[in-house]
Amino acid sequence: MLTKADIQLIRSLSDRRARQESGLFVVEGMKLAAELAASGMRIRRIFATEACSLPGIACERVAPREMERISHLKTPSPVLALVELPRRDLDPATLSGCLSLALDGVQDPGNLGTIIRLADWFGIRDIVCSENSADCFNPKVVQATMGAISRVRVHYTNLEEALKGVRGPVYGTFLEGENIHSAALSADGIIVMGSEGRGVSPGVERLITRKLFIPPWPADAATSESLNVATATAIICSEFRRPR
Amino acid sequence: MLTKADIQLIRSLSDRRARQESGLFVVEGMKLAAELAASGMRIRRIFATEACSLPGIACERVAPREMERISHLKTPSPVLALVELPRRDLDPATLSGCLSLALDGVQDPGNLGTIIRLADWFGIRDIVCSENSADCFNPKVVQATMGAISRVRVHYTNLEEALKGVRGPVYGTFLEGENIHSAALSADGIIVMGSEGRGVSPGVERLITRKLFIPPWPADAATSESLNVATATAIICSEFRRPR
Repeated sequence: MLTKADIQLIRSLSDRRARQESGLFVVEGMKLAAELAASGMRIRRIFATEACSLPGIACERVAPREMERISHLKTPSPVLALVELPRRDLDPATLSGCLSLALDGVQDPGNLGTIIRLADWFGIRDIVCSENSADCFNPKVVQATMGAISRVRVHYTNLEEALKGVRGPVYGTFLEGENIHSAALSADGIIVMGSEGRGVSPGVERLITRKLFIPPWPADAATSESLNVATATAIICSEFRRPR
Repeated sequence: MLTKADIQLIRSLSDRRARQESGLFVVEGMKLAAELAASGMRIRRIFATEACSLPGIACERVAPREMERISHLKTPSPVLALVELPRRDLDPATLSGCLSLALDGVQDPGNLGTIIRLADWFGIRDIVCSENSADCFNPKVVQATMGAISRVRVHYTNLEEALKGVRGPVYGTFLEGENIHSAALSADGIIVMGSEGRGVSPGVERLITRKLFIPPWPADAATSESLNVATATAIICSEFRRPR
């Protein structure tokens, strides 16, 4: 049974501050909720319009009209779970010897969710975000990750300080960078992607040790245009994971 | 001066049928409107909350409150233009000798806009869409293309019939396909991408002559998960345009 306070709480969780104060975020869909539970995340409550079962947690039945009120989706799923925000302290040492991503102010929830999903595909375990980046526990981001949020660790921190602690190369994409098709790419390091509107910030750019460039086709095409940040991240990650 | 009928017409243009009946679509932002005009598209009317000029067309001043009523954006731009839908009849012969894309039921306007934008980056001039794909003149798609809609031709047709007329290879991505890193990729042909939920439809799959696969990393990682369709298209296009 949903109380008025429950409804208010769940609806408020589209807001980052409400998530931080309550320590909770929303996940919709049985598959996603089960994946998060299986990965060790703690489900606090689960609401469903139909029979549902998840080990160790009682499912609360709600009417379809109630689900419409609490859902953050245009087309509600039969299942909505409240999940405890995981604690993810960043130890820069865990970034050593492997490939990671850094996001400098990525704003769009769809882009962030897509980037988390492709990090999972390409075996990237950590994404370090500047504090002004979109929050990975925004309901739109969680849904766009298609479950990858349970496997990829996303950290929010002072990005400049974090990059100073990285031992491997710090990569970024710039018009004057090396062509990714011919550049020597390492198996470790961190790849910085900038925000949709402004790219990489000047303070972060100073910490980049290897500038890369995704060539358009044909190579001499006008490059005033750019690629969407999630698209560019996909191409870069695929190139780093290409056998050489 | 906006009449009630103007407001109704402009708001209706989020709907595909209203666009087809009126022969018009909406573009917001001066840069985008100017790019479309420069590419030869015909601007029927242009509304602005500030002084604006575009050759051969009188700009109609509107109040910010009026712009809020007609804008399809959360944050309205100072400029909104009504543009005539271009006629784009597909002649399969124009697809010969070059690389094109085909979309089999892509639904999300953001994905379609992103795909049009990356087609532009990678020198792909034509995208052939099944009739159940999202419409490229949906305001969300137009905005997501960042102007690429003025350069890339998007066609809606019976996709199976169109693919039967293609002379080069017909590529598609499948779990059992050849690894894109080692597959021989031609400079011509058409790459079919499936819908977000169901992938490539059975009738279209039968017409695919070369199945490809984007490998995860590590290569033996569980592949139950997948990539977002725009992300996968980006990786495939980058791979086709890689010097060999």
